[in-house]
Amino acid sequence: MRKTISVIGSAGCSAQELETAYEVGRGIGENGAVLICGGLGGVMESAAKGAKEFGALTIGILPGADKSIANPYIDIPILTTFGEARNVIVALSADALIAIGGSLGTLSELAFAMKRKKPVIGIKTWDLDKIYCDKVNIISVSNAQEAIEQAFSFA
Amino acid sequence: MRKTISVIGSAGCSAQELETAYEVGRGIGENGAVLICGGLGGVMESAAKGAKEFGALTIGILPGADKSIANPYIDIPILTTFGEARNVIVALSADALIAIGGSLGTLSELAFAMKRKKPVIGIKTWDLDKIYCDKVNIISVSNAQEAIEQAFSFA
Amino acid sequence: MRKTISVIGSAGCSAQELETAYEVGRGIGENGAVLICGGLGGVMESAAKGAKEFGALTIGILPGADKSIANPYIDIPILTTFGEARNVIVALSADALIAIGGSLGTLSELAFAMKRKKPVIGIKTWDLDKIYCDKVNIISVSNAQEAIEQAFSFA
Amino acid sequence: MRKTISVIGSAGCSAQELETAYEVGRGIGENGAVLICGGLGGVMESAAKGAKEFGALTIGILPGADKSIANPYIDIPILTTFGEARNVIVALSADALIAIGGSLGTLSELAFAMKRKKPVIGIKTWDLDKIYCDKVNIISVSNAQEAIEQAFSFA
Repeated sequence: MRKTISVIGSAGCSAQELETAYEVGRGIGENGAVLICGGLGGVMESAAKGAKEFGALTIGILPGADKSIANPYIDIPILTTFGEARNVIVALSADALIAIGGSLGTLSELAFAMKRKKPVIGIKTWDLDKIYCDKVNIISVSNAQEAIEQAFSFA
Repeated sequence: MRKTISVIGSAGCSAQELETAYEVGRGIGENGAVLICGGLGGVMESAAKGAKEFGALTIGILPGADKSIANPYIDIPILTTFGEARNVIVALSADALIAIGGSLGTLSELAFAMKRKKPVIGIKTWDLDKIYCDKVNIISVSNAQEAIEQAFSFA
Repeated sequence: MRKTISVIGSAGCSAQELETAYEVGRGIGENGAVLICGGLGGVMESAAKGAKEFGALTIGILPGADKSIANPYIDIPILTTFGEARNVIVALSADALIAIGGSLGTLSELAFAMKRKKPVIGIKTWDLDKIYCDKVNIISVSNAQEAIEQAFSFA
Repeated sequence: MRKTISVIGSAGCSAQELETAYEVGRGIGENGAVLICGGLGGVMESAAKGAKEFGALTIGILPGADKSIANPYIDIPILTTFGEARNVIVALSADALIAIGGSLGTLSELAFAMKRKKPVIGIKTWDLDKIYCDKVNIISVSNAQEAIEQAFSFA
């Protein structure tokens, strides 16, 4: 099987997050893995751009049945009709996840990934309360390079 | 249409949470609404027990196709085969949600409900960082009675 | 648990199918069961109308997150975001299914129901080839009354 | 985007179907496309074997969250937790589908694909009644080579 890394984050994100996502995508490409993401804009698009430019195959798990909404860096759109429930697929299909910032969709993906004990690396993402729920286990890093190193230690 | 309230929380919860869930279920019954929950044990079962004893119809959105795993207070099991993705249904189908404690499954439900701007009332549930994501809008209350009052202001 | 019957068929159906659906819904109400359907128009609406007028609770499993698309006879809309994959829920959640005519969505529901060995009663619905696949087992009847008798022998 | 072909059929199939599936997979590889399938045994495995041996990337859309159930020729398992509802993804994600024999799971995929007007090529698969439902439009062919020619006229 191919090594796979999911990158999660918002369609509406900051310029800094876009840059980080691109660098994360680049690292996925340089390490010969497959990028999985939600297939849309923002973090998803920037990660796919970086990944594709550095040789990675890119898979976009789309919420609906229309592949034309995929960002232009997706090699293989997976069409689901499942709406936001497709987040489960993004959360579970990869060897590890890298979260960059992120809003409520990202939060749902973090929840599903942690529930199934998937390795999750976070760059300035949700700061969930470990005291409240002892199952929270996000590996917090500060930049794309550290995220890639952590992610590939699991892939 | 009937008024509906979803109650979310863990299968593995504390005695205090079970008691709160029962009181919340009771309130749903006394107010003539329908209880929606994930259909399993813990908070789900205790809420269903309270609801049923006080006259509410109870609906359990089950993760799989086997209705025998429903708790004994579910009137109508909805069978999905969707695993944890069924959490989306629990999050979106009711007029309002009441979260009692909760682990990662509950976290995913909170995320989906807030994303679709469903009213969410929380009793000692996830304390999500409003500074980080301005879309977090959980109405925090301290007991079942306050939760019922808040929930029915939206139902 | 309550007895439940799913009624499946097309939004775009004939006047005869609408009449049959209404009579099937009436039978569900007269027998004290809960109607489950896809929540939209045509056969789904007419069955819900008949069921509701004769005292049945009606549940509509909707493809999306907008309850306003439910037909006016649905008591409890279940919101899914799952698109046509919600057909699995309609197929599996009831004690028995009654199919009235039907197009490709109905065909998917028949497939899922038969795969899980749910009792399926058909009124002029898909005539699937038993020679080809020995798992096809639709009980063919000619009118609403016979369908109700058969369905309640399983509920 | 990459060209994609879904191959659908049963886990429990005949030796002839296995051979046909292998030849279909081979044709997908020789034409430089990506194979999408349900990721399990029988037709799915044999098609993936043929595809992989002739250079195709292979994607398996699995029903659950355990990638170890994928057949050994799957490069990228997509994990869903959606059970048989994952059939929607197999039906919709490719440029064209090739059905080889098939039981009730295949029937559900045919229904979803035709509903969304995906090109479907069938080799001794379900013979659905065009008189009954005018939306049935399976292109019937007699062998793998014809199926590949037809499928790539749409990819």
